[in-house]
Amino acid sequence: MISDLKGTFSNISNNIKRSAIREILKLTQNPEVISFAGGLPAPESFPVDNLDEIISTMLKEEGAEVLQYDATEGVTELRELLLKRYQNEGVQCELDNMIVTTGSQQGLDLVGKVFVNQGDVVICGLPSYLGGISAFQAYGAKMEGVPMDENGMSAELLEAKLIELAEQGIKPKFIYIIPDFQNPTGITMPESRRLEIIALAHKYDVLIVEDCPYREVRFEGEPQRMMYDLDNDDHVMTLGTFSKTFAPGLRIGWILGPKEVNDKIVIAKQSSDLCTPTFVQKMAIRYMKSEHFESNLKKTIDLYHQRRDVMLAEMEKCMPEGVKWTHPEGGMFLFITLPENMDALELFHKAIEKKVAFVTGNVFYCDGGGTNTMRLNFSYVNNEKAIAGIQRLAQIIEAEMAVEAY
Amino acid sequence: MISDLKGTFSNISNNIKRSAIREILKLTQNPEVISFAGGLPAPESFPVDNLDEIISTMLKEEGAEVLQYDATEGVTELRELLLKRYQNEGVQCELDNMIVTTGSQQGLDLVGKVFVNQGDVVICGLPSYLGGISAFQAYGAKMEGVPMDENGMSAELLEAKLIELAEQGIKPKFIYIIPDFQNPTGITMPESRRLEIIALAHKYDVLIVEDCPYREVRFEGEPQRMMYDLDNDDHVMTLGTFSKTFAPGLRIGWILGPKEVNDKIVIAKQSSDLCTPTFVQKMAIRYMKSEHFESNLKKTIDLYHQRRDVMLAEMEKCMPEGVKWTHPEGGMFLFITLPENMDALELFHKAIEKKVAFVTGNVFYCDGGGTNTMRLNFSYVNNEKAIAGIQRLAQIIEAEMAVEAY
Repeated sequence: MISDLKGTFSNISNNIKRSAIREILKLTQNPEVISFAGGLPAPESFPVDNLDEIISTMLKEEGAEVLQYDATEGVTELRELLLKRYQNEGVQCELDNMIVTTGSQQGLDLVGKVFVNQGDVVICGLPSYLGGISAFQAYGAKMEGVPMDENGMSAELLEAKLIELAEQGIKPKFIYIIPDFQNPTGITMPESRRLEIIALAHKYDVLIVEDCPYREVRFEGEPQRMMYDLDNDDHVMTLGTFSKTFAPGLRIGWILGPKEVNDKIVIAKQSSDLCTPTFVQKMAIRYMKSEHFESNLKKTIDLYHQRRDVMLAEMEKCMPEGVKWTHPEGGMFLFITLPENMDALELFHKAIEKKVAFVTGNVFYCDGGGTNTMRLNFSYVNNEKAIAGIQRLAQIIEAEMAVEAY
Repeated sequence: MISDLKGTFSNISNNIKRSAIREILKLTQNPEVISFAGGLPAPESFPVDNLDEIISTMLKEEGAEVLQYDATEGVTELRELLLKRYQNEGVQCELDNMIVTTGSQQGLDLVGKVFVNQGDVVICGLPSYLGGISAFQAYGAKMEGVPMDENGMSAELLEAKLIELAEQGIKPKFIYIIPDFQNPTGITMPESRRLEIIALAHKYDVLIVEDCPYREVRFEGEPQRMMYDLDNDDHVMTLGTFSKTFAPGLRIGWILGPKEVNDKIVIAKQSSDLCTPTFVQKMAIRYMKSEHFESNLKKTIDLYHQRRDVMLAEMEKCMPEGVKWTHPEGGMFLFITLPENMDALELFHKAIEKKVAFVTGNVFYCDGGGTNTMRLNFSYVNNEKAIAGIQRLAQIIEAEMAVEAY
């Protein structure tokens, strides 16, 4: 080995921390542990039975083409189908606005790659999806958090932050927002708040990166118009994915964004992986065009709806007073706030002993806060286990509350 | 749109140029153009007929698992099978040495991400694969080229470059080498040269990044031991891919490297795309375990062998005196050197008019040299077209030589 390997690694490499969630997940490998920790879609929702025929026909009809390189922007027909879905809900967009990415994680990475220099400021919610924060921090982003209320990122506090930064001569590169069933909180931003934040983006001349992995997995309430749609003035780029509506193991995501930005994204993607696997893109085209896409999506929504209901009902039944949680209208996560001085990390270690797991909320706070919060996934665990898991968790919290007065 | 979009893009985004080859390929879209320009494997070599059954069985036996997220390092069984192939030829390697990447282009990107800061020096051959150069330049690499002879990168000139850099207090981050059937030259480095370069890496305390996309596509001559194998002292990391031995549209590559480096690569990959698509990895596992893998590889080798022979024979027959070319023992490319003052770019425009295309060699020279060279792909075009294309090309060169005395 060379003498100073450590000194050979790049700033980027030194910027990236190993995911805290990943470390937590290792502790939850024991099959006896009931884990609310992961962010896995339910495998029961994957269209295993439909794919055999779809692929068989695809190979017959398209042959070698499905195994060849394709355009960096993505297979044209897939881009058109994705656009069509947006256009059907009234969104103004054209082919140049749409790029296929290798999962929406690559979308986040490419956004970081194309915009962030070491030390640049990026604004995100307190808390926010760790994979987004990590992707931006890798390129040297200094994350500035803005607290959330029950309607998502506070517009008032966002403006205060933008003023504070402007006074220091700092213009943030973009504002990162997950408006629907946010990871980790499950909170959805109503249209009024979206409009307020878009107005601030215009006023302070800043881009918005809107991350929408869960948007189509809505159980109840009214669908909200995307910020991309509400803006329609090239201040917003939206990240989408099939990971929650089709299958994560295909790694298909997309970016819907201003043409001038997409042009840079495509060049960056070319050196990142040339193109997203043609084979899975072609599968996705056929799946989208089949009757299975909409019907399976409906089944997935029904499944998660029911799992969320079971979990909420059990929490209602057994969580001690002083513990609060969100009631997401969709998505995969809910968020628990414990009494103020209770340390969720301490609780985590006790929970693992009792064979139940969650992710401590602090990992999603770029300012180190949220030590009394936790994220629970409700998409993966079946009802029986969810009930048992919530009961265990409630007992642990109750025992903890008995030790110290909160 | 925000007021100063251009000023908002990162250094990385400004570092990356749109691929010159990509621009050239746009001019070759006309189906009447016989194109030696692309780097596409022959679609006839893709195992379309074998995959239907493989996938059908996979879906039946593994179900939803093939559609779920998997480990960032890659699916364990695939890593084991890839290791096994190396171990079978005597290479010392273990599971921690092996990471699956989304094509070997992602391997190149991750190497850049993990090692290169703005202004760092990376050494490569003159000429070298453009996708490698671009991936490293994206992160700010200053590419320093070392001329090649008929045995690949010159060890003597490499040492001179290393001394020159050391005198300026500069230690390069790594030396980038494609030892087998190099892209673009088709040249293979014999073991003696490999050993000389490894000795220099030890002496000057530098890593080697060995890129082996074509290694298994050998038509004749003796297989050479990989530099990773010859070194076995953690100075070498090797990039592999299925793009030339199975299918590029799956985007499966891998990195065989020192554990300490791989640890950093995995963390970087996690924020790049979480994991390579599980579905295609699981397909690859079954394909590797089937009898088709080796037999199709043999067919691919035979096909390319024959295509190379046809092309070389035709060149022998019609190329004017003063034109030289390489005789690759494998891979997909050969390299033409024109008389010294002839400009391949000028020739390219004339060639497009006559409906034949190639890539000008200069795009592979990080020092701007090679203006009288061109790369020809022989894997994609069938024999009839290859003969016609070479005849056209020879006529154009001949006409050019008649205009000016070379």
